[in-house]
Amino acid sequence: MTFRFKGNPPSRRQFLTGAAAIGAGAVAATTARAAGDPLITEPQYWAQGLGEGVDATPYGLPIEYESDVVRRNVDWLTADTISSINFTPIHALDGTITPQGCAFERHHSGAIELTKEDYRLMINGLVDTPLVFTYGDLERFPRENHVYFCECAANTGMEWAGAQLNGAQFTHGMIHNMEYTGVPLRTLLEEAGYQTTGKWVYVEGADASGNGRSIPMDKALDDVLVAFKANGEALRMEHGYPVRLVVPGWEGNMWVKWLRRIEVADAPVESREETSKYTDTLANGISRKWTWEMDAKSVVTSPSPQSPITHGPGPLVITGLAWSGRGAIKRVDVSKDGGKTWETARLAKPGERMALSRFYLDTEWDGTEMLLQSRAMDETGYVQPTKAQLREVRGLNSIYHNNCIQTWWVKPDGEAENVEVS
Amino acid sequence: MTFRFKGNPPSRRQFLTGAAAIGAGAVAATTARAAGDPLITEPQYWAQGLGEGVDATPYGLPIEYESDVVRRNVDWLTADTISSINFTPIHALDGTITPQGCAFERHHSGAIELTKEDYRLMINGLVDTPLVFTYGDLERFPRENHVYFCECAANTGMEWAGAQLNGAQFTHGMIHNMEYTGVPLRTLLEEAGYQTTGKWVYVEGADASGNGRSIPMDKALDDVLVAFKANGEALRMEHGYPVRLVVPGWEGNMWVKWLRRIEVADAPVESREETSKYTDTLANGISRKWTWEMDAKSVVTSPSPQSPITHGPGPLVITGLAWSGRGAIKRVDVSKDGGKTWETARLAKPGERMALSRFYLDTEWDGTEMLLQSRAMDETGYVQPTKAQLREVRGLNSIYHNNCIQTWWVKPDGEAENVEVS
Repeated sequence: MTFRFKGNPPSRRQFLTGAAAIGAGAVAATTARAAGDPLITEPQYWAQGLGEGVDATPYGLPIEYESDVVRRNVDWLTADTISSINFTPIHALDGTITPQGCAFERHHSGAIELTKEDYRLMINGLVDTPLVFTYGDLERFPRENHVYFCECAANTGMEWAGAQLNGAQFTHGMIHNMEYTGVPLRTLLEEAGYQTTGKWVYVEGADASGNGRSIPMDKALDDVLVAFKANGEALRMEHGYPVRLVVPGWEGNMWVKWLRRIEVADAPVESREETSKYTDTLANGISRKWTWEMDAKSVVTSPSPQSPITHGPGPLVITGLAWSGRGAIKRVDVSKDGGKTWETARLAKPGERMALSRFYLDTEWDGTEMLLQSRAMDETGYVQPTKAQLREVRGLNSIYHNNCIQTWWVKPDGEAENVEVS
Repeated sequence: MTFRFKGNPPSRRQFLTGAAAIGAGAVAATTARAAGDPLITEPQYWAQGLGEGVDATPYGLPIEYESDVVRRNVDWLTADTISSINFTPIHALDGTITPQGCAFERHHSGAIELTKEDYRLMINGLVDTPLVFTYGDLERFPRENHVYFCECAANTGMEWAGAQLNGAQFTHGMIHNMEYTGVPLRTLLEEAGYQTTGKWVYVEGADASGNGRSIPMDKALDDVLVAFKANGEALRMEHGYPVRLVVPGWEGNMWVKWLRRIEVADAPVESREETSKYTDTLANGISRKWTWEMDAKSVVTSPSPQSPITHGPGPLVITGLAWSGRGAIKRVDVSKDGGKTWETARLAKPGERMALSRFYLDTEWDGTEMLLQSRAMDETGYVQPTKAQLREVRGLNSIYHNNCIQTWWVKPDGEAENVEVS
């Protein structure tokens, strides 16, 4: 009996736009490999002995071969690592859930260690009854579960002036997507009896930075969660253990970690984090503020600079992520020629509000270079802009809220580079 | 300014069935604690210094205070840990996603280490073209994403003869729920050209046990996945890295890990794992076979023996998990009196096919003992049976497929025990 890897199956032909003959030629190489493959013809050592028992890893970690799938920081980006960022390895992930272990971190004075026993949450200001909650108190209120993305406003911020960082992890990795369990902030504000003069809440963390932010009361009463679990288990220390704020669709800086106080106020505080930072300086030198929502955005995660094509021409899965802070993703298009022509990608499932969508374009690669792009559309009808369109409106001075279309130059050898197309 | 923890908010009253006066009395204790609480009145050390930088944990683990939220095995359950099981700490989790790090393991000859480079998957038997796929080949086929539960057929198996193990982790923890990314098995069978005489597939793993199982072709062509990612990242070694089978709704033993071969056949193999094991011996000594689907089931995860009530009377969140291998969960009822009276719980979101549902009963505890039970109903109309009903049909000789209603005796001090009610 001989084995061979056949060409394109009938069920795949609908996806294929390229030359089937090239595809068939490429997979023929696999045929030759399989025929005399000692991994098929010889007994293998892993089938001849015993493996690890069920007491080996009470809490498991990824296998050693995946040791490159980790958060990474960029040395030159910040003066130190205490007030800095690292990046989710989105180039190596699939699906939509981000494991906590490799979900990006952003700190303003480092990740602090705080026990549940020492945890307190105060609600004060324009309320009938100022309150202090222990962790145990919070567990006694009705909980909700929601999957939401959290994106740092500075994600892709280095790219305003041109292609800088070579890899989706670095250009787009200030994002994660988890299933949160928590108590609606509305419930706690009702518990305290918020007053009608209270139009804002000011939220702050228990770390040295405080990281205070003002949130309009409408949002606070809508979908904000006081969360204590992510992907089923306790928040990690670096994500705000034991309690953080979840502000769906809005910039990550407002998702205050180690949440310690919520003050109901009649006006915003105009704190450092919403004036000198997290505002968008335009071409004329004026800075926009209150740009909370994360606009629709997408990126091809593979192929990409850290995830090159490792096979020849033929069937190729192009995949990536899309999201919008204003609702659900409705459609993602992919271009192989730098935006001249577009194909509609397949969403793995219908878009969900303020959550990552995974898209796939099952295609045929002819082995020539590609200028790969993706373009997201959300349920409001908004379409992700090109870098040129965004610069026209915003100039070159911004740091935050860069949601422009990303381009990867994929070369005939399968390697990819971060480039700009004009 | 003084702080106090107020009684039941208006928005919660709809959930409360007990005595509001007792609830208000209980939370008054929180008032006193908050008023002179040094955690409120004094500066805290964690707000006065710097925390950990973003380069501290490239791949993060849970904070040290959560070190009890781990998989655990039971020494006396099996002769050794190589062919054994450990249990997901479901008593401490919330939401529905199970992190890979604490998702249960079941091995028949231990967890093996296999690289992507050494990985091969053969499809042979009644096919037009026997095929061998490398890991890289699999990545070139269209992928899907689905959240599914995986439950060992032996979950709750120790409970047939009476209440044995004290804790939801041990009675119901042979289950996990993850978002899988993989290629539909149908696609690979079509690639090989399965023949119409092929009514079954026989699947086996690359470990020493092989763990071969026969699956009807209808199921193989329906929703079975050849999966390589879970919760976004590579499978863990102990879950079959780099490739495992995902057989939605069917017993975990069929979810073959380190998947190495799929043989298309005209009849089942009647292997050890589907004759002497994973069959259900009835009262008359006859063993049922081909009991693949996991029937509707549920369990209260908190309060439970490992998650006692740590506060006095008043507001209490009762929560748990429900699932069905035959479709989506439609409703879960909770009883506090051992099944005499029932209240309908709140599902965190509408049930999804072959995935865990989280339920909550937001209630008021009067401080007296409870016999806590939950009862799941699925979209087929099936209702989870009592232990007595199940024994009537199945006798006491079975090990697998025990989906009966579980009872926790919650005592006035908040501690809970695994008990039976007649």
